[in-house]
Amino acid sequence: MNNILCIYSRFWLRHLVFMGAGAMGEIKHLVVVKFKEGVVVEEIIKGMEKLVSEVDLVKSFEWGQDSEGHEMLTQGFTHSFAMTFDKKEDYAAFQSHPNHVEYSATFSAAIEKIVVLCFPCVLVKPTG
Amino acid sequence: MNNILCIYSRFWLRHLVFMGAGAMGEIKHLVVVKFKEGVVVEEIIKGMEKLVSEVDLVKSFEWGQDSEGHEMLTQGFTHSFAMTFDKKEDYAAFQSHPNHVEYSATFSAAIEKIVVLCFPCVLVKPTG
Repeated sequence: MNNILCIYSRFWLRHLVFMGAGAMGEIKHLVVVKFKEGVVVEEIIKGMEKLVSEVDLVKSFEWGQDSEGHEMLTQGFTHSFAMTFDKKEDYAAFQSHPNHVEYSATFSAAIEKIVVLCFPCVLVKPTG
Repeated sequence: MNNILCIYSRFWLRHLVFMGAGAMGEIKHLVVVKFKEGVVVEEIIKGMEKLVSEVDLVKSFEWGQDSEGHEMLTQGFTHSFAMTFDKKEDYAAFQSHPNHVEYSATFSAAIEKIVVLCFPCVLVKPTG
């Protein structure tokens, strides 16, 4: 019995260590885009900032506009948006959230090309 | 003279507020890739983890592998790597760091396609 408990504890210990390495299993939703010509990008970004502020499911949000401009590296993409969720269920709930559905229509109309990745985030070197 | 000092102070105050909104003006180096077939991705990632651990210029590092697999969204890209630097000068120094130069050769040989963005990070909704 002790043996079983020991194995069980070890399993959880290993599981916890893994979760630690992966920043508690956070889900990251990464969007890289190139906007259509003529789009007022500031308005689109303002809308996204409003969206993430209103929806508590979004744990954190950061974005940026490429400042290097090496076309060979950027492939024409200019902006990156990254939202973090505590767990996959929160990300799924966000996807179907009415505010997100409404905003998505505006966003989709503004983009020329897009890459979207969604992944459990592995934090190797934490900020400190 | 007081007036000039006042204007100067206001400039710096505004500058500091702006820097605050941008998470103290951190620089993010974002790499989105699709690896060539046959590449042992775990080895490539292990190499990158080693690189960022060795070079203090890299403030934080996180990565992830897309878990959704919607080809229409991912455009075939599978992995995202994001490094954060305190300032632009650190990023520039990292680019020419011998460990980075050495690793880049291995990394470049492994990728089929890549998008690289580098930007001052705007943190709208901080973690917490």
